[in-house]
Amino acid sequence: MTSSGPASKTLDGHGFLNVVSRAEFLALLAGFPALGQEPVPLAEALGRVLAGDLPAPEDLPKTARAAMDGYAVRARDVFGAGETNPAYVDLVADLRIDWRADQAPLRLAAGQAARIPTGGTLPDGADAVVMVEHTDLLPGDAGLGGGAGAGACGIIEVRKSAAPGENVLLPGEDVRAGEPALPAGRVLRAQDVGLLAALGQTSVRVGLRPVVGVISTGDELVPPGETPHPGQIRDVNTSALSCLITEAGGVPRAYGIVPDDLPRLTAALTLALAECDAVLLSGGSSIGARDHSVAAMLAQPGAAILAHGVAMSPGKPTILARAPGGGGPNGGKAMLGLPGQVTSAQVVMTVLVKPFLRRLAGRPDALNEAAPPFVAELARNIAGRPGREDFVRVRLEPRAGQPPLAHPVLGKSGLLKTLLAADGLVAVPATAEGLYKGALAPVWPL
Amino acid sequence: MTSSGPASKTLDGHGFLNVVSRAEFLALLAGFPALGQEPVPLAEALGRVLAGDLPAPEDLPKTARAAMDGYAVRARDVFGAGETNPAYVDLVADLRIDWRADQAPLRLAAGQAARIPTGGTLPDGADAVVMVEHTDLLPGDAGLGGGAGAGACGIIEVRKSAAPGENVLLPGEDVRAGEPALPAGRVLRAQDVGLLAALGQTSVRVGLRPVVGVISTGDELVPPGETPHPGQIRDVNTSALSCLITEAGGVPRAYGIVPDDLPRLTAALTLALAECDAVLLSGGSSIGARDHSVAAMLAQPGAAILAHGVAMSPGKPTILARAPGGGGPNGGKAMLGLPGQVTSAQVVMTVLVKPFLRRLAGRPDALNEAAPPFVAELARNIAGRPGREDFVRVRLEPRAGQPPLAHPVLGKSGLLKTLLAADGLVAVPATAEGLYKGALAPVWPL
Repeated sequence: MTSSGPASKTLDGHGFLNVVSRAEFLALLAGFPALGQEPVPLAEALGRVLAGDLPAPEDLPKTARAAMDGYAVRARDVFGAGETNPAYVDLVADLRIDWRADQAPLRLAAGQAARIPTGGTLPDGADAVVMVEHTDLLPGDAGLGGGAGAGACGIIEVRKSAAPGENVLLPGEDVRAGEPALPAGRVLRAQDVGLLAALGQTSVRVGLRPVVGVISTGDELVPPGETPHPGQIRDVNTSALSCLITEAGGVPRAYGIVPDDLPRLTAALTLALAECDAVLLSGGSSIGARDHSVAAMLAQPGAAILAHGVAMSPGKPTILARAPGGGGPNGGKAMLGLPGQVTSAQVVMTVLVKPFLRRLAGRPDALNEAAPPFVAELARNIAGRPGREDFVRVRLEPRAGQPPLAHPVLGKSGLLKTLLAADGLVAVPATAEGLYKGALAPVWPL
Repeated sequence: MTSSGPASKTLDGHGFLNVVSRAEFLALLAGFPALGQEPVPLAEALGRVLAGDLPAPEDLPKTARAAMDGYAVRARDVFGAGETNPAYVDLVADLRIDWRADQAPLRLAAGQAARIPTGGTLPDGADAVVMVEHTDLLPGDAGLGGGAGAGACGIIEVRKSAAPGENVLLPGEDVRAGEPALPAGRVLRAQDVGLLAALGQTSVRVGLRPVVGVISTGDELVPPGETPHPGQIRDVNTSALSCLITEAGGVPRAYGIVPDDLPRLTAALTLALAECDAVLLSGGSSIGARDHSVAAMLAQPGAAILAHGVAMSPGKPTILARAPGGGGPNGGKAMLGLPGQVTSAQVVMTVLVKPFLRRLAGRPDALNEAAPPFVAELARNIAGRPGREDFVRVRLEPRAGQPPLAHPVLGKSGLLKTLLAADGLVAVPATAEGLYKGALAPVWPL
């Protein structure tokens, strides 16, 4: 599967060394281990990948708490209560939400109740909360509990039975001390960060964000801020690839524009490899320049070409190579050669490189997904070509309560406007001649 | 629709002043204008909202360029060519991709062709590119064109006809000078940023990110870094709401924990209003604290309550008020009161506040979406209650080539773990008694 050094001379008739399927390419990417870990403060944890299982240091909630405004009762005291046969309990306390912070514990005796707000800690003995709307407070002179609340006095008519635990959050009901609160590999969302706050975690260990070098190659390229001479164009790939790296949770590092010159490309790659976790070479879509990419990769000491060509369109001229370095005994840093046309490069980024970067950041399953979970209905037949996977740009038309309609975006594949008009990619499998109108197809979002 | 000052005394029997539907609430939010604009460098443009239509300053491409490696030809010279009746043209130049940067223009005469790499500028006279695989280079002594390329010599056998424009990107084919390249309100993606680079835009005007104040209220709350005494809990909402603000493109600014004390809450709100574009008050889920939220809002000079209560569950105790300030004559800053339970607050954030923040950032359509475009198939019946919209947490089970299955997440609604297990929200309309197993329903992602 791998080759190095002299093998670079044995290019096939189309200039490709070792063409693999997309699944094989993903499997090769899976050979690169996840990066290391770092602690981040909670305020920066959103979207980061949890580095290890996080056992809860304590029960959550710590104590039984009211889930509603109402009266804390002993469920057995209101057993069988209803509209026609209400139960009556003595109101002995009116508890503030934080009453236990500065008051002694309170124990309800048989037939006693305490008014309690949502979130309040239940008094001992209470095991249910009756909602206010199922009760009436009758004036009375029932005894007040031992100093636990002021101004509470009366008898509560309860017109609905309450089961033990009703309208109560029990200790440990959210998560028990020692049990896993969140699993390793989890991409932290707002609610996950909220759980970490509830458990008193002010920082959290997450996977490192991969630093990804971007080298744009091509004699014809000038930076976006310059006016191209005739025959020159502005470099688009550095900007677009950097955005895609950011979207995948990586940190882009641009190494500028390198001409189609092997020594200069080799030097730029050596520098980027030293400073980054992975390096993207883009450009060199013409045959000669493509050879430079392979040669510059093989010029790195100990490097090996893992794949040279992927059976997909666009994206065939993609290259994957490994250089020594990175973490662990089976480490290595990935060098990826991308097609020079930004439209092709974005397809390769979407279906191959972005999953790979998520994997480097610590998501164990990022490369296992054969297709994304989002589906759309094809608005028309889409032709493919057996033997390669065809990725077709589609515009999505939202429909109420149905999967969106996917309209293929027509136009020459090299035009940026086909990407501007597209919302996603649909794949025609290598084994199919096409997909039929009305079929549901997975969509990679663009 | 609005009320102020004394009207705060006229709460209804359930403590709500003015209950509106979700659609009405969204319409009220639409009354707040988008914020201003700022220029950002291209490297920070991803995910920002384009502030105005962007007309292309020049044609893209500027000149006709090859979309493939091959031979630039005059289409009429290879008209009708095929496997059995090839056409023959003279190779007069071997063009580098950037040949026009330092060479004089080249014009192809009748019967002439030039080798050209992908991206190369077409010579004058050429209007098509024939792919290499449909040709053979026959050795010959045809004349070379005026200095435009060295070493090119021979006759090309062309075995496939080429239409004018074939394998060529024409000048202005991506976008024409003066035509809109991108529309105002566009959320900039990688390909949009790429287009900006191609057009020489090194910075771009985008909508300001809304700065959103977060005030967490509750006597029982302590910061995540502290150990709660009995009866206290850690503040979850500041962390979780800040994440949700960030996800919607806003900038969260935390004002800490304020006890259920009207003067202190009023002062915190005054400070936050002065420093932010909108303010979220969270907490006060108990009736008394909810009254404090309304009172603190009305204590701001010139403030008006727009809605007090939304006919949805969870989320009913949501409050919307307007304070003077913000941009334009019809400006105003929004104050939003959210339920204190983080599970309820996250539902309100997802279906009401996040769309609002996107609107403030300049997306004109952010509040028009009645439902998200993503759909799932219900794995079981889901009950609702007529008269209110019920938002049900669901876990999504991916399925190959089909919408995911949506499984309702069971458990007490106040438990954080119901949100941890959920991938999205499904709405049971206020007019329905429920949704049936097998139906397709829109899903708000969580």
